[in-house]
Amino acid sequence: MDKGKLNRVLKSMEENNVPQIIISDPNAIFYLTGKWIHPGERLLALYLNINGNHKMIINKLFPQEGDLGVDLIYYDDIEDGVEILSKYVEADKLMGIDKEWPSKFLLRLQELKAGKSFVNASYIVDYVRQIKDEKEIATMIESSRLNDLTMEELIPWVGKGKTELELDAIVRDIYKKHGIFDVAFDPITAYAKSATDPHHVTDNTKGKYGDCVVLDIGGKYNDYCSDMTRTVFIGEVSERQKEIYNVVLEANLRGIAAAKPGNRMCDVDLACRNYIEEMGFGEYFTHRTGHSCGIEDHEFGDVSSVNEDIIKPGQCFSVEPGIYIPEEEIGVRIEDLVITTEDGCIVLNNFTKDIIVVPEDK
Amino acid sequence: MDKGKLNRVLKSMEENNVPQIIISDPNAIFYLTGKWIHPGERLLALYLNINGNHKMIINKLFPQEGDLGVDLIYYDDIEDGVEILSKYVEADKLMGIDKEWPSKFLLRLQELKAGKSFVNASYIVDYVRQIKDEKEIATMIESSRLNDLTMEELIPWVGKGKTELELDAIVRDIYKKHGIFDVAFDPITAYAKSATDPHHVTDNTKGKYGDCVVLDIGGKYNDYCSDMTRTVFIGEVSERQKEIYNVVLEANLRGIAAAKPGNRMCDVDLACRNYIEEMGFGEYFTHRTGHSCGIEDHEFGDVSSVNEDIIKPGQCFSVEPGIYIPEEEIGVRIEDLVITTEDGCIVLNNFTKDIIVVPEDK
Repeated sequence: MDKGKLNRVLKSMEENNVPQIIISDPNAIFYLTGKWIHPGERLLALYLNINGNHKMIINKLFPQEGDLGVDLIYYDDIEDGVEILSKYVEADKLMGIDKEWPSKFLLRLQELKAGKSFVNASYIVDYVRQIKDEKEIATMIESSRLNDLTMEELIPWVGKGKTELELDAIVRDIYKKHGIFDVAFDPITAYAKSATDPHHVTDNTKGKYGDCVVLDIGGKYNDYCSDMTRTVFIGEVSERQKEIYNVVLEANLRGIAAAKPGNRMCDVDLACRNYIEEMGFGEYFTHRTGHSCGIEDHEFGDVSSVNEDIIKPGQCFSVEPGIYIPEEEIGVRIEDLVITTEDGCIVLNNFTKDIIVVPEDK
Repeated sequence: MDKGKLNRVLKSMEENNVPQIIISDPNAIFYLTGKWIHPGERLLALYLNINGNHKMIINKLFPQEGDLGVDLIYYDDIEDGVEILSKYVEADKLMGIDKEWPSKFLLRLQELKAGKSFVNASYIVDYVRQIKDEKEIATMIESSRLNDLTMEELIPWVGKGKTELELDAIVRDIYKKHGIFDVAFDPITAYAKSATDPHHVTDNTKGKYGDCVVLDIGGKYNDYCSDMTRTVFIGEVSERQKEIYNVVLEANLRGIAAAKPGNRMCDVDLACRNYIEEMGFGEYFTHRTGHSCGIEDHEFGDVSSVNEDIIKPGQCFSVEPGIYIPEEEIGVRIEDLVITTEDGCIVLNNFTKDIIVVPEDK
């Protein structure tokens, strides 16, 4: 296990009076051990105890090579993995549980009375994961640099009369050229009406002259996600489109300016939201301003009006205000990832936010 | 909700003394309501009570059109969905819980004391889902018919020097021609050495003269899965390959003969396993004989030596014995889906199980 990360988790357990914890989320286990283990429906439990008696209960189908820095306890399909786990825990003490652990395991653990009481303790690992260390920051910077290059190569294709699904395939091909073989999420390559639906599912719509096009893309580089959005226009941009674009851009810049230690996450949301409301588009900004990002595209800690957590140095999150007006077929979103520093933030996306009009070129 | 399916679930709840149950698995909810709802990390709970007071607690982000046959209780992101759910339950009675429900919800429900005790009750829905009704059977027959056609078109490609990943793409294209837009699982298109690993991940290996090729493919037709395996040979088949092929084929036929009501699921496994052992290949048959199939490719109820459940009419499962000898680069698996009838079973896959040698044609 990564000593620094493990010690930060153990320290938080002490501070929060959680003497023992079961971690089951493969992302959290990767974070701590550097190994991806996807057990499907089978039990995988990393048990941490502040007394240092850590164990990993793992099915024999997933044999691990090398030292994970924790005792591995293997079980097979005809054994009861939770019962094996229960032998290592302190039954007279509170037990922290992973928020995503399937109930079948928790109910069995409770039946075995393997804990004095049971609480959701995922926040302990989640808050530690929020603060990226130096190596993580370097990886995320490179991940977003490759995303910038991908966006640059993608944009000319927008004028070539491709369907959204064809653009989707093109994004994935460009990523591969840059050594990115996994997307962080299914790309959004949405024309006009589709662009006005933040939850649009990519389809066979083709772009046409005058369309706005929302391109929201992210890849995984060395297991860390990128995530950015640019909105471009085909053939020409109308005055109305330009007006809306500039409001979103200013909101994006104000959000970034608010992304600094001491402010709360909701202050970043409000910086975007208040400006969009002032300009008369409040009802068309229909989602939160952003989300934390790292090993997962969406991590714990959103940039929303209800998250009052104080921002600390080393956090990575997106700033992605948008305005969506279906009746005018105008949708604009501009998104950057930022990482907070001691007194501000660095913006991971350096691709231009100037208005881009892509010539039609079928 | 589908009245027949709902009534079978309610009857089983009565028989098992589970007066109320929370269902969260999107597959189970689709089974009962005919609607796919994928709530991601958000709460989705179908609450059933034998007194008829059914409710569905659902986030406003997933508005439902039409009548689902159950009261919908919407909540939004700043509300506590589990607390809302807790107002509808009978707190002084036992509560059945979905095996896959994330612990964050169960722990909150327990904190609210919304149940006298909590038990894993997924088996109730799972056993009902095992028995397919007439419409489901008709759908699965058609799903497998289209899979047969796909296999037929796929096999000639095996001789054309394609990589496994290229074959993978070809399978998906053939499915589309037949109106199948979703695979039931990532296809296995494995040559020689790859074919000897039942968990092989498709890669850039190319087929060569003399290879055995395991083709394990399945699609989704009207939400129901197909799943079949054929093993073919490039250029020629050796006597040794032929010997092993015929052992697997006979095991497959014996498994199918054992697939009838009154027998146990383990009897199907044993019918295959005993024959393979008799023929001296026991150590090379390294997995269970099969799995139940329906809305999901792998459903509750496996065909293994430890499943002593008595087979009933209307069950659908796979019979897929295999022999894998890495040191000889020979891997053979032959798989069919069957649906049990009153006194036997129908085999859903009608594509030939004769040995096929595909000419090299690069």
